[in-house]
Amino acid sequence: MENFTIYNPVNLHFGKGVLDLLPSSINQYGERILLIYGKSSIKESGLYNQLMSMLDGFTIFEYEGIKSNPLVEDADAATKIARENKVDVILAVGGGSVIDTAKMVSIGVAEECSVWDYMIGKEHPSKAIPLFAVLTLAATGTEMNPFAVLQNEKLKRKIGYGHSFLYPKESYLDPQLTTTVSKDYTVYGIVDLIAHALEAYFGKGDSPLADRFVYSIIEEAMEVGPELLRNLDNYELRARIMYAATMALNGTTLHGRQSGDWGVHAIGHELSLLFDIAHGASLSIAYPAWMRIMKSKASDRICELGSVLFGAQDVDETALEFEEFFKSLGAPTRLTDVNIKDKDRKKIIRQWSDNNISGLNYKLSEGDYKPLLDYMI
Amino acid sequence: MENFTIYNPVNLHFGKGVLDLLPSSINQYGERILLIYGKSSIKESGLYNQLMSMLDGFTIFEYEGIKSNPLVEDADAATKIARENKVDVILAVGGGSVIDTAKMVSIGVAEECSVWDYMIGKEHPSKAIPLFAVLTLAATGTEMNPFAVLQNEKLKRKIGYGHSFLYPKESYLDPQLTTTVSKDYTVYGIVDLIAHALEAYFGKGDSPLADRFVYSIIEEAMEVGPELLRNLDNYELRARIMYAATMALNGTTLHGRQSGDWGVHAIGHELSLLFDIAHGASLSIAYPAWMRIMKSKASDRICELGSVLFGAQDVDETALEFEEFFKSLGAPTRLTDVNIKDKDRKKIIRQWSDNNISGLNYKLSEGDYKPLLDYMI
Repeated sequence: MENFTIYNPVNLHFGKGVLDLLPSSINQYGERILLIYGKSSIKESGLYNQLMSMLDGFTIFEYEGIKSNPLVEDADAATKIARENKVDVILAVGGGSVIDTAKMVSIGVAEECSVWDYMIGKEHPSKAIPLFAVLTLAATGTEMNPFAVLQNEKLKRKIGYGHSFLYPKESYLDPQLTTTVSKDYTVYGIVDLIAHALEAYFGKGDSPLADRFVYSIIEEAMEVGPELLRNLDNYELRARIMYAATMALNGTTLHGRQSGDWGVHAIGHELSLLFDIAHGASLSIAYPAWMRIMKSKASDRICELGSVLFGAQDVDETALEFEEFFKSLGAPTRLTDVNIKDKDRKKIIRQWSDNNISGLNYKLSEGDYKPLLDYMI
Repeated sequence: MENFTIYNPVNLHFGKGVLDLLPSSINQYGERILLIYGKSSIKESGLYNQLMSMLDGFTIFEYEGIKSNPLVEDADAATKIARENKVDVILAVGGGSVIDTAKMVSIGVAEECSVWDYMIGKEHPSKAIPLFAVLTLAATGTEMNPFAVLQNEKLKRKIGYGHSFLYPKESYLDPQLTTTVSKDYTVYGIVDLIAHALEAYFGKGDSPLADRFVYSIIEEAMEVGPELLRNLDNYELRARIMYAATMALNGTTLHGRQSGDWGVHAIGHELSLLFDIAHGASLSIAYPAWMRIMKSKASDRICELGSVLFGAQDVDETALEFEEFFKSLGAPTRLTDVNIKDKDRKKIIRQWSDNNISGLNYKLSEGDYKPLLDYMI
């Protein structure tokens, strides 16, 4: 085991009706709120009205329209509103993209720069204003971690950033709020949480108990996922996936390791950037392909995983089991499933190459890009 | 799944040499320290001198002699020293008994009452001074939870107490500090961590992923335990058990449940109180017996556990597997193994009865005590 730190100060409320606690919690920090959310879904579901009525008496500013691949440009615009209106608290209501945007806003308020400057290490945050997150989509785990991933439209780059200031102060997870999530996005969430567990598993450093936690999370997702897709409005199944998604990226699976790998996420981020495909879709396509090209470098590790989860005998069988599982959920497993064509090859390889796409543990080289793509087409 | 909260603000440093961080961390809170520790072992191991040299420049008061079944009387005496000397920080160096004592001291300083008054709910803590814990024994998980268990010698009662003020500010877990722990106490630690995972498993509320975490922790302990006993000075094995012990009672296995059961701990605490046997020893005797008397009330749950861990078919086989495993470690599994005799029956039953020993989920009644004892003798 590698040396590690466990520190996660998020106060996370999980279950039916937990939103009731929100007003008094926010009230400890002030009465001026910047509410950040996505498109129309929280208005259609009634959540917007519910929150407005609960937060009657607070002064609420709003920034809406966060995209599912969230943009630095939106974070900067929201930051400006937060700064100009001297808000005390950021309230993010939505999925990972909304919360990631809100995280960057929460540190961005302090200085007159683009949040991108923090992400590339040009500036360092000096403080954060409290962030409250109401999660409406089980997927990214951002509700209980200090990471954010944003896309810079101008520079055509999508990168992650981590800082201890980015832990939400409190997160509210009521699985009831996820029962209206579409089948597609439910699937992407399941793929995403499995991919997060895998990124930890393939990270730097042996941590056998953390490996067992990885298996536990993936087994849970594989057991619940298919049943949930047949019963999208089932509370218990939604709750199990929501909890699994939180545990997949709240630090637990990284205990005893130096880091995760994150190579597959990097591959996927570039695809989302080029073709605006959903993050989860990029991962269900990339992970089986990544396992196949890692046959020589990570054989033992992939085989151990496949053996525990599927009784698989080798890398190919393990990769196929994941591919078949993703396919059974209705997730794309080839680029052609999301209308990315053979003619896009050059563009993809150039994009990976320009950004030196690799993992932190299992390195990808230029020479890997073509065979990787071959497995993805 | 039941509604639940995840909140654990402990900053836990794990690995080789993490103590190096201690002086600067303490320094943020002040320079007057009350050091609390057990008997001679930290002096014999050299840890005492190491700390004294690291903390040169701080003003250090000391309270030594905490017993392995820690006493309210010691906590009160240490509290007096902390209060009179206006210490800024409590530094606990030892196992669970030392840290539990220090936790109560950290809240006790504020008011002129016995810490027992908090434990029985007569007083409520108003604040706590920062507690730093240096763990030298992998067992109780107290390094990352808000609980303490103390024994009141005068009243002959041993009870647990929980409050959010009892989270250590920071905990330091260097597995190197545990390589000199005796075989007996290594065994008790392994039994204790397994028992903690089981208390969560038998608690109130279904939480399938938390169940998988329970299996993971127990499987890890059962894989590493026997190997560690053959290699007591092996860093990697010590590290794996130390990490497992933390995860067994830091809240993770309780996610999605209302509470753990804690019936077996209650049974065991009374035995420790009457006969001064080690906590772990009381648990290896009590758990298999408890499973046997719960054959009718908790059959499905015990069978599920036995099936996952051992491929067992029924309650008796599951109980026997646990008994055999504990025995293989050299842990006592019958009261006679720790010199408690048939003639002590009445005394034990009276003690359980006087204190209404039961679990929070699977209730024990007066009528259960005799058959329970029959399985333990």
